[in-house]
Amino acid sequence: MSRLVLKFGGTSVANVERIRNVARHVKREVDAGHDVAVVVSAMSGKTNELVEWCREAAPMHDAREYDAVVASGEIVTAGLLAIALQELGVQARSWQGWQVPVLTSDAHGSARIEAVDGAEIVKRFKERQEVAVVAGFQGLHAPTGRVTTLGRGGSDTSAVALAAAIGAERCDIYTDVDGVYTTDPRVVAKARRLDRVSYEEMLEMASLGAKVLQVRSVEVAMAHRVRTYVRSSFDDPADPSPGTLICDEDEIMEKQVVTGIAFSRDEAQITLRGVADKPGVAAAIFMPLAEAGINVDMIIQVVSDDASTTDITFTVPGGDYSRARKIIEDRGASIGYRSLQGANDVVKISAIGIGMRSHAGVAARAFKALAEKGVNIRAITTSEIKFSVLIDATYTELAVRTLHSLYGLDKAA
Amino acid sequence: MSRLVLKFGGTSVANVERIRNVARHVKREVDAGHDVAVVVSAMSGKTNELVEWCREAAPMHDAREYDAVVASGEIVTAGLLAIALQELGVQARSWQGWQVPVLTSDAHGSARIEAVDGAEIVKRFKERQEVAVVAGFQGLHAPTGRVTTLGRGGSDTSAVALAAAIGAERCDIYTDVDGVYTTDPRVVAKARRLDRVSYEEMLEMASLGAKVLQVRSVEVAMAHRVRTYVRSSFDDPADPSPGTLICDEDEIMEKQVVTGIAFSRDEAQITLRGVADKPGVAAAIFMPLAEAGINVDMIIQVVSDDASTTDITFTVPGGDYSRARKIIEDRGASIGYRSLQGANDVVKISAIGIGMRSHAGVAARAFKALAEKGVNIRAITTSEIKFSVLIDATYTELAVRTLHSLYGLDKAA
Repeated sequence: MSRLVLKFGGTSVANVERIRNVARHVKREVDAGHDVAVVVSAMSGKTNELVEWCREAAPMHDAREYDAVVASGEIVTAGLLAIALQELGVQARSWQGWQVPVLTSDAHGSARIEAVDGAEIVKRFKERQEVAVVAGFQGLHAPTGRVTTLGRGGSDTSAVALAAAIGAERCDIYTDVDGVYTTDPRVVAKARRLDRVSYEEMLEMASLGAKVLQVRSVEVAMAHRVRTYVRSSFDDPADPSPGTLICDEDEIMEKQVVTGIAFSRDEAQITLRGVADKPGVAAAIFMPLAEAGINVDMIIQVVSDDASTTDITFTVPGGDYSRARKIIEDRGASIGYRSLQGANDVVKISAIGIGMRSHAGVAARAFKALAEKGVNIRAITTSEIKFSVLIDATYTELAVRTLHSLYGLDKAA
Repeated sequence: MSRLVLKFGGTSVANVERIRNVARHVKREVDAGHDVAVVVSAMSGKTNELVEWCREAAPMHDAREYDAVVASGEIVTAGLLAIALQELGVQARSWQGWQVPVLTSDAHGSARIEAVDGAEIVKRFKERQEVAVVAGFQGLHAPTGRVTTLGRGGSDTSAVALAAAIGAERCDIYTDVDGVYTTDPRVVAKARRLDRVSYEEMLEMASLGAKVLQVRSVEVAMAHRVRTYVRSSFDDPADPSPGTLICDEDEIMEKQVVTGIAFSRDEAQITLRGVADKPGVAAAIFMPLAEAGINVDMIIQVVSDDASTTDITFTVPGGDYSRARKIIEDRGASIGYRSLQGANDVVKISAIGIGMRSHAGVAARAFKALAEKGVNIRAITTSEIKFSVLIDATYTELAVRTLHSLYGLDKAA
């Protein structure tokens, strides 16, 4: 009689017929004797519609009102799924964020979950075997009594946080793919579905461009050790495949050196040439960017020919490129540089694997393989379980396939 | 510095452009120095869409879930209007039913407002001149913590109840017509807009088929003496016409004998011939209908030729016609009647006026005028300030026009 949390994203609840299909997945778990809480997203397209209406009402709008409007999408899905479950003879009720309550910070539009009170949901498991259908993506900022949202993809985080709160045995994230792959199967036909992946690896993959899960949800899963499956809602509800388990690395027997290749096209590079090589110059560049909320990722500093100046290259998210350039150019005099070059037709490709901790030279093999294919590397960063290279966007597919083969990730023909 | 409540219905907030227009109406009142609360409906069509989804999910669905789903429509409008007001430089925030809170009974789908706590809204009027934008049609059943809805047209009631709670000087119901008319202008071209109409008259008009206001909202307005205007949101926000004031009859100088002609096509007639004229037979007919929740309106009993039996005619709402027939037929043996006749191509036409109290023979003039036009009257009911006749539906327009002229309601040519 274990507890489960199931989460269904927008494409899984795109219309009432799909919601009825979701009800069959939930019923299967209830029939198997589990206490089940379900977290749902808005029907696909609905959130975009609501966001667009807010923008039409005013280009710069109050994030508190945006949250009230946008959170309505998940409320609709939760109610409809509760109805569909009842129609199958399953006891169910819907819960809005403020009803649970899911308590969050007041950072409207990207609030963080501070606490989930699962007591009433658990009480109802015990008293009436009632399925809880919880509107994802939303919460309550209790001091002001206002509705908050967690930001795009926040329903994953809602689900994992709820699973932690009610002590669920596992959290199943149903989506439109049947698991986590070694890389994007649309780019590499030989991509393999992973049976298991560690929290640390999944966190890197999500951070580095894999879109299967929201980064924050993996952080919460890792912090609370919530065993999380990524699986498909498009499987036959009577015979679903298990998907990919995201779990503690102790549960993973054979640790791969490299588990997956991620890539992110949302990158831009800025290079400042002829910067004075003196204390304080890095602060003069990066403080204004930090103050503007622009996240600087890779930073490379090279001494230039004339030893009194250096060249500094860094990357920012593609969407912040113009803004970042303008911030630097506006401060050109105080920073002091000879020229500014930039590019947003770049891509960051990353290899992730907990096995890197115990294997030396993993990245070096990649640099060699890419060089042999004529791929020029613009920047490199490494950490304990991953390395990333920044390259020209035109080489994306070639580079991903090269690394995928190099590390033995291709599925058997 | 008086307080106002403004209410905008579905067609007035049909899209974001219309919502921005509503914001201009609100700003006009704010600029005039008023403290303003606004009550909004869902964007037109949205409620129907949500209702249809509930039906698709399950034909017989949990009213609590229906309420959660359907109430989301008003939440969206409230947030968007708050954004549109802020864009015009007007301080504003949205309020969902549970946030105010608007406390209701637990009759999901048709809950009654039990209390509105306007304290926080009033506090914010004083502290920050902030407009309160309240989602209409919805409330909170506090003991269960669940969202309720008030039934179709419930936003009118939300507005009037809020006006009573915050001691508003008046409540303006903005709609797609510019006031209350002597009758439906689509039927009678000479219909006149009324400057004032008493609560009692408006209550009868709404009950008898005029669709301009929900009956319950007029009851609340009458009980709390809320001066309520019906006016058009399609007027130029800079120069709106005042509309029709619904007020205490003491405020109406010249009391008309007849103020308006209402009609309802949603009627059906059932006649039982040869019913035994003995005690208990009426109970045998009407108790089962009452238990089935069918509202019997007119009842006429006539002694038939053979004096031991009678004929009984009664009317029910058109939508309940088949069900009512079946209930009677199933109990044919215990009731005992010779034959059952029915018709749902009938219409009820009513004349309403507080002046009837002090004028005799008002109805008799109508019977004579209708007879002269060859209109057969199937049934009649009267009360202190109205009378109604049931006639064949084909004569609807003729009968309405005849009575409209008879009582001097036609506007000057």
